[in-house]
Amino acid sequence: MSDWKSPWVDPHWCLAVDLYEISMLAGYWEAQMFFPATFEMSFRYMPPHRGFLVACGIETALHYITNLRFDDAAIAYLRSVPNLARLPQGFWDYLRHFQFTGRVRAVPEGTLVFPHEPVLVVTAPLPEAQVLESFVLAVINFQTMVATKAARVVQAARGRGVVEFGLRRAHSPEAGFWAARAAYVGGCVGTSNLQAGFAFGIPVSGTMAHSWVLAHASEEEAFRHFQRLFPEHTVLLIDTFDTLEGARKAARLGVPFRAVRVDSGDLAVLTQEVRRILDAAGLQDVRIVLSGDLNEYIIDELLTAGVPADLFGVGTDLVTSRDAPAMTGNYKLVEWQSGQTRHPRMKTSPGKQTLPGRKQVYRFAGPDGRWTHDTIALEDESIEGGMPLLRTYIEKGAWVAEMPSLTDTQRYVRDQLERLPEPYRRLRDPAVYPVHLSPGLTELVERLRGGNP
Amino acid sequence: MSDWKSPWVDPHWCLAVDLYEISMLAGYWEAQMFFPATFEMSFRYMPPHRGFLVACGIETALHYITNLRFDDAAIAYLRSVPNLARLPQGFWDYLRHFQFTGRVRAVPEGTLVFPHEPVLVVTAPLPEAQVLESFVLAVINFQTMVATKAARVVQAARGRGVVEFGLRRAHSPEAGFWAARAAYVGGCVGTSNLQAGFAFGIPVSGTMAHSWVLAHASEEEAFRHFQRLFPEHTVLLIDTFDTLEGARKAARLGVPFRAVRVDSGDLAVLTQEVRRILDAAGLQDVRIVLSGDLNEYIIDELLTAGVPADLFGVGTDLVTSRDAPAMTGNYKLVEWQSGQTRHPRMKTSPGKQTLPGRKQVYRFAGPDGRWTHDTIALEDESIEGGMPLLRTYIEKGAWVAEMPSLTDTQRYVRDQLERLPEPYRRLRDPAVYPVHLSPGLTELVERLRGGNP
Repeated sequence: MSDWKSPWVDPHWCLAVDLYEISMLAGYWEAQMFFPATFEMSFRYMPPHRGFLVACGIETALHYITNLRFDDAAIAYLRSVPNLARLPQGFWDYLRHFQFTGRVRAVPEGTLVFPHEPVLVVTAPLPEAQVLESFVLAVINFQTMVATKAARVVQAARGRGVVEFGLRRAHSPEAGFWAARAAYVGGCVGTSNLQAGFAFGIPVSGTMAHSWVLAHASEEEAFRHFQRLFPEHTVLLIDTFDTLEGARKAARLGVPFRAVRVDSGDLAVLTQEVRRILDAAGLQDVRIVLSGDLNEYIIDELLTAGVPADLFGVGTDLVTSRDAPAMTGNYKLVEWQSGQTRHPRMKTSPGKQTLPGRKQVYRFAGPDGRWTHDTIALEDESIEGGMPLLRTYIEKGAWVAEMPSLTDTQRYVRDQLERLPEPYRRLRDPAVYPVHLSPGLTELVERLRGGNP
Repeated sequence: MSDWKSPWVDPHWCLAVDLYEISMLAGYWEAQMFFPATFEMSFRYMPPHRGFLVACGIETALHYITNLRFDDAAIAYLRSVPNLARLPQGFWDYLRHFQFTGRVRAVPEGTLVFPHEPVLVVTAPLPEAQVLESFVLAVINFQTMVATKAARVVQAARGRGVVEFGLRRAHSPEAGFWAARAAYVGGCVGTSNLQAGFAFGIPVSGTMAHSWVLAHASEEEAFRHFQRLFPEHTVLLIDTFDTLEGARKAARLGVPFRAVRVDSGDLAVLTQEVRRILDAAGLQDVRIVLSGDLNEYIIDELLTAGVPADLFGVGTDLVTSRDAPAMTGNYKLVEWQSGQTRHPRMKTSPGKQTLPGRKQVYRFAGPDGRWTHDTIALEDESIEGGMPLLRTYIEKGAWVAEMPSLTDTQRYVRDQLERLPEPYRRLRDPAVYPVHLSPGLTELVERLRGGNP
């Protein structure tokens, strides 16, 4: 893994920003607006049927922030953009030496969060904090969406393994890569994606394609060939022509093979029949893998109906979060400072209000350890009895905290879900987890609602 | 652009495959199954409300295919994967020298296509054709989805410009990059994404963020500061606090500024009011840009209601294709050859049947030049009067045809849409474009339906 060239340190990723971020950077530079500003990323509202979100992509975003530089090729391009062409040389010199020098606080990777709670908070000279917006949002919006979906699918699978199979339907191969990371954080046992296995050490698994079967003279021959090559890892795909016929061929083949996979048809009926065929042949240890447009709703129905599935391969719906394919994360200025004076700021656009000021989130639990509610408070307010969620990861542009391994993060997600009461974990129409505003924050909102300049 | 390091030639992208592809590669190698095989990518069915698809990502996929190599780091990783650990040295030597030596036919980038029609067809030694599956699908599924969505949004905008604004809500920053490319192919006039501007020469545009306004002592000062810096490019975001108040401030400011942007609230009402305020101040030439969770349906309603919008910034819904966020593209073995004998193959899984054999698609037009129907035929069948869609781009692993510029591709899409009759272009419940199977193909399907081995 040492020579894995992270996409996020490729200097060309400095251009993965919106034009207006560079325009504003130039404006702040020109007016010497280098005062400290605080921007917060939070989610505006819950996507449909979500009762919780698994914050994910924090580490990816932090790598980007600490590695962001503008190289000559990027600057040459920027100078060719009509809007920017007249900016003075001084700005380009500034950009060439740009690096992030501020502080980043964030919830730990994998933390369960709710709307309006700050997930990542940047305090830095105004231009440095501003320019991060689009990239950080794209990273955390997407990985949070997939980690959340994965946690739902894993919950529906009731202890059976879920493998992420979605590369081919992801929004680009790169999205497939990041989706595999997020799906693992959300609780998947593995991925079919080798790049994610390589970069992140996620366990990889895979079976065979229909084309493998079709490329042989017969289904039997295809099965035998695979079994000879990968005896202890063989998963036979039995639905290329007729699933039950495929199961009988697999049964006649005998062990060693680990599992059969069914990818089409009426899975509820077929799985029962396939189980019977395997059992009748003495193959009680052979597992049944289901795949084919699965999601948390279908898996829940299958298992409620007692279908004897052992493992689920979930692709499209997982990596696109098909029923809720966009997140509402935004990144907003909440405060700036001139000299010793702090200016909390708040947007009041209808339906898009923001919460002003530098904040902390506290999570409260009852005597049984289960969570009862959260409180969003101002950073310097004293709130007792709750656990603060935001930690400092970057200080003066440098890492000051370690990130846990991805496996530890996965465990952290699982542990939190056990402490989240069931009504908030329901797959459909979950209860709304209570998030309160502290007295200090409430007062500040009231004050700015009238008096924003 | 010369030093733009395309993501698709990064050697680590060789691992952006599913484990089963490497397993099958090993199996084909072990059994010396190097005979020519043909795989076809096509779409299984139309996503909801789509009457046509804009095939996109063909060029990206072709770059990947011709550049795919497995480097030492990738092979070292693959050898550590438990399923693959026992494969002999000969296989790893084969992989180290792997390169694509076959033929690729495809429809030209931007071609309008319909379900079941081959979009990209690979004929190559079996392992070479097989291993491309996941990456090629991820590329073409996603770019086709976004180009299609863009064509719909552009159509709804009735000649007004649509700019792609979606980076922050794309499924990863990389997805945002590819989305910008596809959106331009589909007809957008530009993007806010600088990386896409840099890599593809797409015109970039941008305004200011709410944080720009909030970072200044007052809205007026924020407006004046931006105007001073970018006089001829200034687009003022007027909805940070109160849109009509913002419009009045902009109007008092006077020219030069190009436009105002409204990003929230009741756009139908606000746009009318803002237009009145600007006109009353003699600012008839100042344009109004609308943004904020727009899509083809909303834009169509706004314009039907006579809202005087001049330009639309469309983000989330465009880059995620929110109402239909996954495509059904698949990549299936349709034929293999042993000696002089061709073996057409067909999968008969319920709901997932494929069309066997090597094929060509013919498009037929009436006397007015408008399209009437398509016919999918076997490659060696003689079909008269239709225009064949598939061309050869790669022969013996090398490019044999030039790709047009992205701007030419955009024009090609527009020209085709003019030839597609209106019922197939409707935004909701479009008519189903007729796609026929030729007599030869029909006969082959009938034969294999009974007799697949």
